[in-house]
Parts: sequence; structure tokens; C-alpha cells
Amino acid sequence: MSSFELKTWMQTHLDRIEMTLSEGIQQDAPAELGQAMRYAVLDGGKRLRPLLVLATAEAVGDSLQGSAALRAACAIELIHAYSLVHDDMPCMDNDVLRRGKPTVHVQFGEAQALLAGDALQTLAFEMLTPQDGTVPPSVQAVCVGLLARASGYLGMAGGQAIDLASVGHSLTEDQLRQMHRLKTGALLLCSVQMGAKCVPGVSEQVLGALTRFGQALGLAFQVIDDVLDVTADSATLGKTAGKDVAADKPTYVALMGLEAAKNYADALAAEAMQALVETGLSDSRLGALRALAAMVVQRNN
Amino acid sequence: MSSFELKTWMQTHLDRIEMTLSEGIQQDAPAELGQAMRYAVLDGGKRLRPLLVLATAEAVGDSLQGSAALRAACAIELIHAYSLVHDDMPCMDNDVLRRGKPTVHVQFGEAQALLAGDALQTLAFEMLTPQDGTVPPSVQAVCVGLLARASGYLGMAGGQAIDLASVGHSLTEDQLRQMHRLKTGALLLCSVQMGAKCVPGVSEQVLGALTRFGQALGLAFQVIDDVLDVTADSATLGKTAGKDVAADKPTYVALMGLEAAKNYADALAAEAMQALVETGLSDSRLGALRALAAMVVQRNN
Repeated sequence: MSSFELKTWMQTHLDRIEMTLSEGIQQDAPAELGQAMRYAVLDGGKRLRPLLVLATAEAVGDSLQGSAALRAACAIELIHAYSLVHDDMPCMDNDVLRRGKPTVHVQFGEAQALLAGDALQTLAFEMLTPQDGTVPPSVQAVCVGLLARASGYLGMAGGQAIDLASVGHSLTEDQLRQMHRLKTGALLLCSVQMGAKCVPGVSEQVLGALTRFGQALGLAFQVIDDVLDVTADSATLGKTAGKDVAADKPTYVALMGLEAAKNYADALAAEAMQALVETGLSDSRLGALRALAAMVVQRNN
Repeated sequence: MSSFELKTWMQTHLDRIEMTLSEGIQQDAPAELGQAMRYAVLDGGKRLRPLLVLATAEAVGDSLQGSAALRAACAIELIHAYSLVHDDMPCMDNDVLRRGKPTVHVQFGEAQALLAGDALQTLAFEMLTPQDGTVPPSVQAVCVGLLARASGYLGMAGGQAIDLASVGHSLTEDQLRQMHRLKTGALLLCSVQMGAKCVPGVSEQVLGALTRFGQALGLAFQVIDDVLDVTADSATLGKTAGKDVAADKPTYVALMGLEAAKNYADALAAEAMQALVETGLSDSRLGALRALAAMVVQRNN
């Protein structure tokens, strides 16, 4: 897939994601809650997780005519969005800038931000369980099971707890990897797994290789995040740069140095690409996944 | 069902609920998160919602040998518990006492309380989607759909948003009812609906009557909550008494006076009992539901 093709693929799919997210949050929800939720989710975000869901579903043969993969894509973005709203709150990272805009609690107040985050998490599970018969109950159940486990105390929330506890403490590389596996990696892996489960009957070989792909990509994503925290400026990042260093948070850059961290990210990207080869799926099927993985490694925000 | 029988019924079912909740939250979850979650959920709470799930499931013929109803029961308690943790936080009600103990943020800090609430919500959906084949995927999907819709921005979270916005404003009785229908009523109704859906093939007549039961009971519960806020002391309530009045929150007592509010609660309880008759289910089947409804109306905390 050439870079031009990726651009077209992304635009088509991003349009569907944005429309589904927008339709999913009614403007007239009670007392500004809907507005706070829309503010947190719409008009921003790279949508990496939803694009990974759709690219994986296509890779295993989903024509994306049905709504299962699209709903899974939006559900995982809602989980990601809720985690950002709560992460930014004063009792957590106390951040005022996100995607170049004031954070939700700055714009709507802390109580509304707390509620909006809560309701965005709930909406993710609503998104996975449409009542109109468009997604088979078995797919609904599998996706809820995957997303809940990736988000919860043995997934993303657990990783955040380790992160909280680790500020000012030095971690070993193993501990750092464990933290990121939960905090960031679990959702990225889950994107790939949900995409694959939207199509029944995918072989264990393919699922196994896609899992290795998701794991390597998730770790690469975090290493690059740490690199960008020291090399990019706030305007490019759309969030406050240098905040990990300022908060004395353990990072790959702190642990191994900037150049070694960049090399580690490249090695992980190569591992991810190799896992795609091991799926045995055709090159034409894998185009979008390959292009997305390359984008993760080459990103500058 | 005599009061003695209710006591026995409750003890048996409470034991199963407590055990399942305790098994569901691993002590060794990362960095104190598991401890904060356990603190929020275990050793406290009347477990009204889970008991309603189990009583309804029994009413429609579930022998409760399987795990569907028990999991639904624990899932709704986890949602209830998460909402209390977040509600008590400084940016919301800023309450320091809950079930006679320091609230979670007092005990573990605000950041951990925020995370613990988030992770308890996620765990509810994990609870509904066991990976061991013990609950049919169709029941999993239905329960997730019901619970997500009852908890989210058009349910409990939406009601809390109205509550936030209403402090210091006078509401009409219709607006007050709408707020409570979402904030408290949606979860109580959902308990009844999930219990009924754990058994396939329950008739529309029975589902309709149980829905009316759940609606009336939910509203009765809230009216009595408002009454207790002015008539009970903090020690009996296990939480700060008089806080609605102190916060100038709209309540049924403020709207209609204490005696009229008590009478309204009685009328709603009678409506709930009548709905049970209209299910057409046998008296022996309905015993636990009747006894629970009576308990809600006669409670003093």
C-alpha cells in the first residue's frame, strides 16, 4: 500500500468513525453532560486504536459492511477518551492542555469531567451491544469480554496505578515494560484482538501472530511516546511536552538514553512487521495494518 | 414468606454475593488498586440491587444453580459501588463517611479513588462476560446492554449530572422524578430486568409487570432516602445525615413536606406490590421480591 493509498484508506475510515462517535453521543444528554462528552471525544485524536480495529478486521476478511468492527472501533476510542479525561484531572496529572485545547475539567469543571469520563466508559459497552440485531450476540459478548479485561484493573487501570506509585522511584526495564504493557499496550493489543474477533472462524495461527503484532506495536508506541516527550515541543504534541521528565516519571529514555530508546523502538517495529508476515495473510490484506504500524513508529506527535 | 424465611433467604444469597465479589477482585492487583477496590466493595452495603436480581431470577424460575444471575447481581453492585466512590470525591459531594467508614479517597487518596471507581465500573462488565462457558453469550450480551444503558449518560450518570446542575435550584415534581428515575431508579429497574433476562423465554406480560414493579420500587426507594435524610442520624444511616438539606438539594421532603413524602412512599410501595400481582406468578415464587420491597419501604438506613 503506497502512502497515497493509506491516506485515502484512512480518510474513508476516519469519516465513518467520526460519524459513529458523533451519533453515539446525543447532544441533548442531561445538563451539559453530553456536551462535555462530545468535547472529550470529537474533533481531535489520531484514532489509532479504532483504525487498528478496522485494519485488523479487513486483514482477516471483514468487508466492513456490517457494524461489528465499526462499533468495536468506536468503543475502544471511548475507553481511550475516558482515560484521558480522568488522567488530566487535578488529582492525577493535573494537565490543562490536550489535543491543543483546554482539558475537560478546565472547560467544564471537575465534577462534570469526572462524570463525563465515567459516562464515556459506560458508552463504550453500550456501543458494543446494539439492540437492533446488527451484531451477533456472540460477537458482542466476546468484544465486551476483551475490552473490559484490557481496560480494567489487570489492564489499563492497573497500569495507571503502577504509574501513580512509580513517580520518583526508579524501575527496572522489566517493571517499566510491565507498567506500559498494562497502561498503553493492553488497549492497543485489544484493538487488534477485537478486530480479529469480528470475523468468526479466524485460525489460531493467525490470532497468535496478530497478538504478537499487537504486543510489539503497543510497546513500540510507548517507547516512542517517551522519546517524543523529550524531543518534541508542546505545540507539535498537542499536549504538554517534557511533563514526564518534570514529574520524575520513569521512562525508556531515562532508563536507556535517547539513542538506545530510538533503536529499541525500531527493533520493536521490525518485530511487529515480522509478526504480520507470520499471519500468512496476503500482502494486499495486510496493507493497512503495515501502513498504520509504520505511522506509529514515524509519528512526531 | 415470613420474616424468618426472608432472613434465611437473604443470608444464603448474601453469602454467595459476598464470595463472588471477593473472588472477583484480586488482592494482588497492581499498586494498592486492588485494596482500594476491595475496600470500596466488601464488608458493607445492603446489597439491595444484587438481592433484587436474584429474587427476580427466582421469581421467573431460575434455580440459581448457574452463574448468570449471580454474576448479574455482582455486576450491578460493582456499578453501584463505583458510583459511590466517585460521588464521595471532593469535586462531587465531598463526603468523608460512607457505611460508617472513611470514604475511599480519604483512605487511599483522590487519585487512587478515581482509578478504583473506574476499575470497578470496568469489572462490572468483566463480571458479566465470563470466559468459561458458564453463561450463554446471548445472556451476556443482553445483560451488558441493559446494565450499560442503565448506568450511562441516559441513566445513572445522566441523573447525577442533573443532580449537580440542580443544587440551589427549585425543581418541579416532574423534574425531580426525572432526576431520580435516572440517578437511582435506572439501576434498581435494571436489577429486576437483568434478573428476568437470566431465564430465556419469559413472557412479555411478566416482563411488563416486573418493569412496573421495578419503576415503582425505584421511586419509592428515593422518596424514602429523602425522608431518612431529615429523620435519621448519621450513625444509623452510616453516612452523613442532613447533607441534602445542607447542600440545598431538591428533595421530595422539600417539595411536598415530610408527611406527604411518607404517604407518597407508601403509595408507591402499594403500586409495586400490585405490579407483582399482575405478573401472574405464584405467591411462592414472589415471596422474596415481596419481602425485599417491604424491606425497602420500612428501612431506617
